[in-house]
Amino acid sequence: MEKVKKIYLAEKEIPHQWYNIQADMPNPTLPPLHPGTMQPIGPQDLAPLFPMELIKQEVSQDRWVDIPDEVREVYKIWRPSPLYRAYGLEKLLGTNCKIYYKYEGNSPSGSHKPNTAVPQAYYNKMEGVKKISTETGAGQWGSALSFACQHFGIECEVYMVKISYNQKPYRKLLMNTWGATVIPSPSDKTNAGRKILEMNPNSNGSLGIAISEAVEVAATSENTKYALGSVLNHVLMHQTIIGLEAEKQFEMAGDFPDIVIAPFGGGSNFAGISFPFLRHNFTSGKKIRCIASEPASCPKLTKGQFRYDFGDTVGMTPLLPMFTLGHTFMPAPIHAGGLRYHGAGAIVSQLLKDKLIEAQAYQQKECFDAGVKFAKAEGILPAPEATHGIANVIREVSRAKEEGVSKTILFNLCGHGYFDMSAYQDYFDGKLVDHHFTDEELYANLKELNTPIPG
Amino acid sequence: MEKVKKIYLAEKEIPHQWYNIQADMPNPTLPPLHPGTMQPIGPQDLAPLFPMELIKQEVSQDRWVDIPDEVREVYKIWRPSPLYRAYGLEKLLGTNCKIYYKYEGNSPSGSHKPNTAVPQAYYNKMEGVKKISTETGAGQWGSALSFACQHFGIECEVYMVKISYNQKPYRKLLMNTWGATVIPSPSDKTNAGRKILEMNPNSNGSLGIAISEAVEVAATSENTKYALGSVLNHVLMHQTIIGLEAEKQFEMAGDFPDIVIAPFGGGSNFAGISFPFLRHNFTSGKKIRCIASEPASCPKLTKGQFRYDFGDTVGMTPLLPMFTLGHTFMPAPIHAGGLRYHGAGAIVSQLLKDKLIEAQAYQQKECFDAGVKFAKAEGILPAPEATHGIANVIREVSRAKEEGVSKTILFNLCGHGYFDMSAYQDYFDGKLVDHHFTDEELYANLKELNTPIPG
Repeated sequence: MEKVKKIYLAEKEIPHQWYNIQADMPNPTLPPLHPGTMQPIGPQDLAPLFPMELIKQEVSQDRWVDIPDEVREVYKIWRPSPLYRAYGLEKLLGTNCKIYYKYEGNSPSGSHKPNTAVPQAYYNKMEGVKKISTETGAGQWGSALSFACQHFGIECEVYMVKISYNQKPYRKLLMNTWGATVIPSPSDKTNAGRKILEMNPNSNGSLGIAISEAVEVAATSENTKYALGSVLNHVLMHQTIIGLEAEKQFEMAGDFPDIVIAPFGGGSNFAGISFPFLRHNFTSGKKIRCIASEPASCPKLTKGQFRYDFGDTVGMTPLLPMFTLGHTFMPAPIHAGGLRYHGAGAIVSQLLKDKLIEAQAYQQKECFDAGVKFAKAEGILPAPEATHGIANVIREVSRAKEEGVSKTILFNLCGHGYFDMSAYQDYFDGKLVDHHFTDEELYANLKELNTPIPG
Repeated sequence: MEKVKKIYLAEKEIPHQWYNIQADMPNPTLPPLHPGTMQPIGPQDLAPLFPMELIKQEVSQDRWVDIPDEVREVYKIWRPSPLYRAYGLEKLLGTNCKIYYKYEGNSPSGSHKPNTAVPQAYYNKMEGVKKISTETGAGQWGSALSFACQHFGIECEVYMVKISYNQKPYRKLLMNTWGATVIPSPSDKTNAGRKILEMNPNSNGSLGIAISEAVEVAATSENTKYALGSVLNHVLMHQTIIGLEAEKQFEMAGDFPDIVIAPFGGGSNFAGISFPFLRHNFTSGKKIRCIASEPASCPKLTKGQFRYDFGDTVGMTPLLPMFTLGHTFMPAPIHAGGLRYHGAGAIVSQLLKDKLIEAQAYQQKECFDAGVKFAKAEGILPAPEATHGIANVIREVSRAKEEGVSKTILFNLCGHGYFDMSAYQDYFDGKLVDHHFTDEELYANLKELNTPIPG
């Protein structure tokens, strides 16, 4: 029988339901709190920002949630995504571990983000929303939402972190091609933006600031809602399509992973591939290790504190129970812009607190080393975010070797690096810098927080 | 039954043989001539440049040529490529034509070029070649060959047209990532390059000049061969994997094309998708229209002359029977760098002369209009080269409407445009220029040619 490099599912095998891990978690997540009253918020508190169907999904305890046919139709542009066996990387590493990766880079915007952008745009459309505002860092989320809004005929306004806006004109242009308006953040279009610019007219912006702006626009404009590309429960759930497909593909391959790895920003990448496998730990006693690979420049999982914190910098969002470095923490300027976020979503935070998942932190040089190895061995040039997962795989392979065991490892190759070539240029030019925070630097923003610590 | 957007083949369905149209052409191609003696060249004349297996393929009359297992293994990184039904574009155009496209942009370098780069590197490897020199314009071919050489452990030296080298640093970097050396052409490393620089120290270079340099390096260095990304018979044959897969996919869809369309530079893109369908015209009396879409800035098929001409600017290659504008013709600086070549391959030229295929020329503004329409309707951002095919599809759809008929149209979406965002920037900024050559300008270089005119 000939060696199978990648396992494709037919289109009809695209799952018809997402998996909602809230149905199976041993301990439920703590509720979000209203920042004024410190009381749990209700659906009506979120209604100015999100369509009701997404609010329902946010708190749903149903194990399976139907994927609308209209969403599945759009998924067909790039889904099911292929599951690859990394024969090339295995050979290069000289390992007897089996390495698989799920490749999400064939989507229109080149990452896993459209998996949630499409249903979010769809539910907004169904509830008569005319415009969606959002933020974007490196641009993956903004371009995914632009694509999705274009499809459903919704206006899209993207607040893009100013330093990325200036450094990544092509990502901006991609959003324009799909009809979106892109505004460098902080901007003078919102109170939040003006407040930041007053304090620092030269502010380069941050994801937290851009969220403040986009939320304000949605909260104060007619027929306008807000969309977030990670962190929230419904976003994580939409991404489970990745792991659910992978499950079927492993069945076809007659194999099953011992370890599942994904890069970690706010949680959607990691949740997407790992939650359907974690389910087996909860329901059938498996012991799959699920590892989140975060950047050492923003180590909320490995060094943060579990407490209530804001999702944005200015403090406009509800308080979420999260592993956080404080909502004013400024991550080092690494190239993996998608991972530069101060906190982790509530579900992932609860799972980590309960020691049901693991986390590891990686410096960017090690990541780019891994990324270039991967490009040579497998042909695909990974996005800087994705290289964090690859670095993690390489460490786990070393560990297996030391322990004299063979493991089956799955990781999420969440996107390609074609829009991130300047990062590779810096790598080859020896300009990449690893940033080592002192504990004092890491915890400075937490000390000033006066939000509740759970438990 | 649910609507199928894209048709995937399983990996085991990757064809085991390429299709060699030379076996079925009503009139064979004329032989290449030695530029000194004007006599047909033999295998020994090509031996300094190519491994013997590729020379054999160049003149083979066998209908089917086996694809080596080692090549099929590498193909598995991105093949079989999906065949899409363009429901979105059909809707946007309001047509009752059925539009399909074969998408080659999921390959490591983002275009169809690795289909031939991989076997070329493989045959060189088998014959002990240590280094391959080549040229590249926009960079698609250079990056494909870099990837292939990296895989088989061969050194790769790419002469990149200087203006592209300066304007497209990311394509260069991609080649570097796969271990290739990239040299701006004209360079002072070759006699050909020095000769050009003497005449014009500020030369921006051209594909023809870069070919001269790469050919010289191969002809004068130990264990070094040359590789070409289009034009030659064996290159065209390797690309037939595209059309052969599409044939199987149409069978799965229970459909068959009336019209097959592809962008045209040197012929490999067009040959790749159309030759397996032309076979049905030759062998079973079908009347599929196969249309080559060339740029109006380099209209060799629609305005060129059928005569013997050189493949390069300096005049180092054998003379090939081709539709040409003259080997010193300088195409207008359009963004579709991959189509800026003065001549067409011998097979395609013979087919056009025999009126067995058609050609149409397109200005770049019409092409980018079509490309942006496509991105909005289908989600995928096409390469500038690919937009020529899309513009052609749109015209054929109009024609079908005028004639009150419904056609099934297939085109080759040969690559994505993620490395060509600056072209889209120019488009959105209104900076794209259409160039209208006068007949005098078009034929100036032909007049000076003293090569034979066949027949």
